Amino acid sequence: MHVVLLVLDLVGTFVFAISGAAVGVQGEMDLFGVLVLSFATGNAGGITRDVMIGSLPPAAIADWRYLGVSALAGLITFFWYPLVDRMRNPVLVFDAAGLALFAVTGTQKALAYRLNPVMAALLGMLTGIGGGMTRDVLAMRIPVVLREDIYAVAALAGAATVVVGYALHLPPAPMMLAGAAACFALRLMAMLRGWHLPVARSAQRRASAKPIESQDR
Amino acid sequence: MHVVLLVLDLVGTFVFAISGAAVGVQGEMDLFGVLVLSFATGNAGGITRDVMIGSLPPAAIADWRYLGVSALAGLITFFWYPLVDRMRNPVLVFDAAGLALFAVTGTQKALAYRLNPVMAALLGMLTGIGGGMTRDVLAMRIPVVLREDIYAVAALAGAATVVVGYALHLPPAPMMLAGAAACFALRLMAMLRGWHLPVARSAQRRASAKPIESQDR
Amino acid sequence: MHVVLLVLDLVGTFVFAISGAAVGVQGEMDLFGVLVLSFATGNAGGITRDVMIGSLPPAAIADWRYLGVSALAGLITFFWYPLVDRMRNPVLVFDAAGLALFAVTGTQKALAYRLNPVMAALLGMLTGIGGGMTRDVLAMRIPVVLREDIYAVAALAGAATVVVGYALHLPPAPMMLAGAAACFALRLMAMLRGWHLPVARSAQRRASAKPIESQDR
Repeated sequence: MHVVLLVLDLVGTFVFAISGAAVGVQGEMDLFGVLVLSFATGNAGGITRDVMIGSLPPAAIADWRYLGVSALAGLITFFWYPLVDRMRNPVLVFDAAGLALFAVTGTQKALAYRLNPVMAALLGMLTGIGGGMTRDVLAMRIPVVLREDIYAVAALAGAATVVVGYALHLPPAPMMLAGAAACFALRLMAMLRGWHLPVARSAQRRASAKPIESQDR
Repeated sequence: MHVVLLVLDLVGTFVFAISGAAVGVQGEMDLFGVLVLSFATGNAGGITRDVMIGSLPPAAIADWRYLGVSALAGLITFFWYPLVDRMRNPVLVFDAAGLALFAVTGTQKALAYRLNPVMAALLGMLTGIGGGMTRDVLAMRIPVVLREDIYAVAALAGAATVVVGYALHLPPAPMMLAGAAACFALRLMAMLRGWHLPVARSAQRRASAKPIESQDR
Repeated sequence: MHVVLLVLDLVGTFVFAISGAAVGVQGEMDLFGVLVLSFATGNAGGITRDVMIGSLPPAAIADWRYLGVSALAGLITFFWYPLVDRMRNPVLVFDAAGLALFAVTGTQKALAYRLNPVMAALLGMLTGIGGGMTRDVLAMRIPVVLREDIYAVAALAGAATVVVGYALHLPPAPMMLAGAAACFALRLMAMLRGWHLPVARSAQRRASAKPIESQDR
């Protein structure tokens, strides 16, 4: 069980790190900027989770494999970017995979630290969205979680799957895989099919105003 | 006493969450983006405070009521935005209320964890300004605390009231209410009357250069 | 030994706080905005380090001298900005000094908390880059660590010096000074001579697309 959690966590770190590195390469950053963005994107969610549940020092700091996996993802993306770029939207595809994996590992770890199930699902969602949020804030973009319709919803679906499995005393490993698959599929479908959640009516009426106005008063 | 702290904390979460949700609706975000911004704005200050004083897991994660109150504020703002928008500047009015409440609850909780009084006031100020800072960073705006003259000053006034009451062994609940009222009044007056603190002279001279530019598209 | 660590930490806080305050004055912020940016820049790295290693409450919150030193730096920069501005690029020069000092104190403190040497160097690097990152995110600029070629590399060089000294059982104080000097010199030379790390080739080819605009002058 513990091994499953570690492997999913490391794979999540790897794919999130690729999405961070791809943003860095697109922004023409140098090698170390790309590596910093890889590490931050791959580990921000897990570090936040570990700080929240009081598991200090966080796994991403105490265990060198998280650093190694992030650096590997950054180097691959930096030197073989054309490979990554063949996908239609590489940043968002790898981001979706990281979201799915961290949502379920975050939930599972929070349950292991005896948070109640509702808050464990919330913390799983936060773990999932933390990576992309950090990447986008550092790169001066509106975080994807605030822009994309089905994003936090997808993370919550993955987290809820794990919590339901826990409540029904099902074995955790298959539930984590099922939850991650559900989240990833939901996120991909939303991207490919353009699925949307409702937008506030009042906002639609004043649609001429720019999306987010910085600095209004 | 403990109940007073909890109630003020939850009311602060609610009003901060409304200010976050209003930024989301103005930015034409979908429902879940609005809910994420509500939760982040309503709870960032308190989570930071709890992490700093080592009270883990933070109240906002361990207690479902913080999530519930944030979600309620987000839903109300999303579906009845015209109600919220009747105020002249709803984001800043609710922000001022959240600032006031978190400044005093942050100070009181830090005192309960035996920080010395000066640092308790500082931590109270940080708790107060954390919500608006998170909201503005996520929405790609210069944080209000860096733009508005009387903001951190107002939070500090509220926090100092609580610390003075503590030093004089006065009962904490009325001091917290007095501190919150002082902070809120100071902030509102600054907005309505355009009160200002001095700006550095050298900056005024070179007013043409604008090193910090708003970045929206 | 403990005194050396404290002194270097406070000097690092002071110089980072000056760099934060200078950004605030350049952005025509009022006095309190400048003080908030001073405090955030001077203490974000150290607070992150202390939260990561589980040393709570963080030194910057528990010890009033960090607040005092940050406020002093903010006041000096605010009222005597022409003095600071005489340097060619005051924000980046003070930033380099803070980077150097925090990289070595962060590493040393992580070693004292029994992190393994590789992760101690990583945490030292994070401590160093945290201040500038916070300053730039709050002021809506792309963080310097993502823009500048030799930045995280310089912090890592300083941190590695401390770790090598630790592995060889050399006395820590001179190794910390040597590491800080190495980091500072490397960073200054990179600025003055325009040293660069390689940029991804694929990024160079598609130079027309620029999703991330560097934001410095």
